Amino acid sequence: MPDQTQGRYDVQKFRSLVNEIPFAMFTTVTADGSLRSRPMVATASAFDGWLWFFTRTGSAVTGEIGSNSHVNITYVSAPEDRFVSASGQASVVRDVEAASRMWSPSYSAWFAGGPGDPDLSLIKVELTRVEFWDRKTGRMQTL
Amino acid sequence: MPDQTQGRYDVQKFRSLVNEIPFAMFTTVTADGSLRSRPMVATASAFDGWLWFFTRTGSAVTGEIGSNSHVNITYVSAPEDRFVSASGQASVVRDVEAASRMWSPSYSAWFAGGPGDPDLSLIKVELTRVEFWDRKTGRMQTL
Repeated sequence: MPDQTQGRYDVQKFRSLVNEIPFAMFTTVTADGSLRSRPMVATASAFDGWLWFFTRTGSAVTGEIGSNSHVNITYVSAPEDRFVSASGQASVVRDVEAASRMWSPSYSAWFAGGPGDPDLSLIKVELTRVEFWDRKTGRMQTL
Repeated sequence: MPDQTQGRYDVQKFRSLVNEIPFAMFTTVTADGSLRSRPMVATASAFDGWLWFFTRTGSAVTGEIGSNSHVNITYVSAPEDRFVSASGQASVVRDVEAASRMWSPSYSAWFAGGPGDPDLSLIKVELTRVEFWDRKTGRMQTL
């Protein structure tokens, strides 16, 4: 597991930016080029240099990633003026070991078979750029 | 000004979905195909069938829209489980009349010259698809 920095961004700083924001909006490019978002469960434990998300095997989001891997993930906590934009390249993987590591009992409601449920796929995102709102300057700042 | 419906979505329903969410995350496609988001002021008054946003003339977002008009705007109010994805095509316009209609005195901090400030441009978004999180089904629903 990488610590502190991986690529061009600071893992600890990223963690503090998204800390305790339970849902992220996950944006993909559809076949016709339009952009589409949906909420996804975002947990600090699902960040180890890559960002990981749980999804249903064969869901729309996995199809969209399959044809265009560019994604954006936003984390918003408006009362604190926290607005984070994470740009990256996503892939869809089946990885029972990674799913076990990030598993929470509450996920059983969606994936009755646990981390090895064939209906469970993981989205793995390699971050290429992270930006966050800087209250002081009133601009986005690159991490 | 269109009322009730325009194109494929219901204006009143859209208004109620985004009501009192002061900031939206606005996602664009950059020249290299990556996706990028930033918070933008979202006001109910800035919706009359199109979505309108204030921006600085020549800002990065205007350049990105110029080369790829596909955008996505998300509205999040996590405590209420409100997650809205608005997909559309954006254009950058100078429209002093529209800017006056949506003007708020607080905007003077950014645009000292008022609605006619040469530094002020408007982003006008034609919505093509609106989806929102449906608590009951645990899925996105198309408006």
